[in-house]
Amino acid sequence: MKDDIILLAHGAGGKKSADLIGGLFLKHFGNPTLNVLGDSAIIRNGAHTLAFTTDSFVVDPLFFPGGDIGKLAICGTVNDLAAAGAQPIALSAAFILEEGLEFEVLERIVDSMSRTASEVGVSIVTGDTKVVPRGSADRMFINTSGIGLLPAQEYPSPERACVGDIVILSGTIGDHGMAVMTCREGIRFSSEIMSDCAPLNDLVAKMLEASPSIHCLRDPTRGGLAATLNEIASQSGVCIEIEEEKIPANEDVRVACELLGIDPLHVANEGKMLVIVPAQDAEAVLSALREHPLGERAAIIGRVHSEPTGRVHLKTSMGSLRILDIPAGDLLPRIC
Amino acid sequence: MKDDIILLAHGAGGKKSADLIGGLFLKHFGNPTLNVLGDSAIIRNGAHTLAFTTDSFVVDPLFFPGGDIGKLAICGTVNDLAAAGAQPIALSAAFILEEGLEFEVLERIVDSMSRTASEVGVSIVTGDTKVVPRGSADRMFINTSGIGLLPAQEYPSPERACVGDIVILSGTIGDHGMAVMTCREGIRFSSEIMSDCAPLNDLVAKMLEASPSIHCLRDPTRGGLAATLNEIASQSGVCIEIEEEKIPANEDVRVACELLGIDPLHVANEGKMLVIVPAQDAEAVLSALREHPLGERAAIIGRVHSEPTGRVHLKTSMGSLRILDIPAGDLLPRIC
Repeated sequence: MKDDIILLAHGAGGKKSADLIGGLFLKHFGNPTLNVLGDSAIIRNGAHTLAFTTDSFVVDPLFFPGGDIGKLAICGTVNDLAAAGAQPIALSAAFILEEGLEFEVLERIVDSMSRTASEVGVSIVTGDTKVVPRGSADRMFINTSGIGLLPAQEYPSPERACVGDIVILSGTIGDHGMAVMTCREGIRFSSEIMSDCAPLNDLVAKMLEASPSIHCLRDPTRGGLAATLNEIASQSGVCIEIEEEKIPANEDVRVACELLGIDPLHVANEGKMLVIVPAQDAEAVLSALREHPLGERAAIIGRVHSEPTGRVHLKTSMGSLRILDIPAGDLLPRIC
Repeated sequence: MKDDIILLAHGAGGKKSADLIGGLFLKHFGNPTLNVLGDSAIIRNGAHTLAFTTDSFVVDPLFFPGGDIGKLAICGTVNDLAAAGAQPIALSAAFILEEGLEFEVLERIVDSMSRTASEVGVSIVTGDTKVVPRGSADRMFINTSGIGLLPAQEYPSPERACVGDIVILSGTIGDHGMAVMTCREGIRFSSEIMSDCAPLNDLVAKMLEASPSIHCLRDPTRGGLAATLNEIASQSGVCIEIEEEKIPANEDVRVACELLGIDPLHVANEGKMLVIVPAQDAEAVLSALREHPLGERAAIIGRVHSEPTGRVHLKTSMGSLRILDIPAGDLLPRIC
């Protein structure tokens, strides 16, 4: 059924997001570069190949355990470039501010962006500021776009997963989404759940040193690991099978998800990379990940099969096999 | 006085915008590329030089005579690239949508973006969509970022105005701002004021063919011609003198500004280019402009002097000379 109005689910990274992208944006904007729907667009420009990406951030609250909207805005865009195998060369920052926003809040966020960009080693080279009247926006939204440089001729792409490839996850799932959600809702657990928000460009560089022939890299943000795996399975025309038991997750996140009835496979991550790699390179990539502070809990979680194409199968801890679909609703609005 | 909270004036392109950029963004983000504060950042990447720019659009209403937020979002970013002398090679489009926005409205705007991008000959290669709950945004905001290619070694920059240079304006001022304002406020004149919203990449290409040594190009959007001239005077360390009588303006815009007590020199334009060019090239550039449908009313409006540096002088129709300052308040919120 076609919707008459925009729903929260259209921004949640699941089924309705895919409908909106396919049914509206690709219909009007469609072109070979956009249609790939990678985390970054790949632009060939003479001898160089560029990656280009954009993301708006509307997270609520602005500050959460482990990060804030500013850190998130830098990491999100750096990670989308990293997922193309690119090193960032320039970022933009565009602010939509609500009249009345405390200057001190804005400065803390700008400072956080600046520190994160320094850590990455990239500059914010261009920007924009708009202010809208009270009530026309909720405090502040940030857009960051980024340009990255692809050193290699071959680069990871969501279309490149091959039968026999190994699926690796760089660490625990669900931390970012549950950190924001429990913070926003005022839910307390034995310890505070911290967002995993982190820039992954260095981690990706180390992986590409270990194996220049990585087939796919994706950061599983909105829609979580489930959405990302489904997108790759569909775009590569393969079946991906993962094993529930092998997926790393922090205990607090597991408990929080269980209490709230949320599947951790649907929860956004902001400091994790999903890697699909030829079997002969899997151990080298896994070692490279585990040697890195942001990849200590990396694990092999599955394998790529031929059939049924476009499907993701989850082997549960009980030993049964179930279809892992992309999330249908709007479980977690304004997570990023 | 330092403000504790963000005011509408911080987004108006005048004094407070400059304070926010200098006192906060440059303080934290400052780097040689950003500090130029051109319409685009210039990035040297091997043999190629890239232009990179970002803009968020929050115009209210979404549709106005002569355009809509979608057309505006494409033109705004294309024109920022054009002002660097660059031809666009890729655009991004990021949407922040309010829950409940009519799908039909979104589709009309997306279609308008698509048609404008086709006219320019550039593709939207990457995008993002966020949806926020009702009341957290006002219908829709769009961010467009763009990458352009600079063919020449020398390119226009707001730092390059020289004593003796001629100041040319590509057409009438004030059309966009007054079209949006009179539409929003329901004010009717003898005829409807139309926005000048248009992509200027082709116009700029024709000018650069006529004179590859154009010193400055700026599109006078927020803050109007007054803000743009002041920025160039300050960044180039020169005095710019313009003659009121020579500045083209449509009669309805003049009347509307007079009735509403608004200086047309402070009103945003979205299809005009300010050009500063060595005197010997002025006639060639003017001819190139006038031969183009978007430059028919181009005119020489002034000249660059040495002193007092950083100042803009306006020779009024009465023959007196007054300082033309940048706008101080927030005359026209949500114009772009």
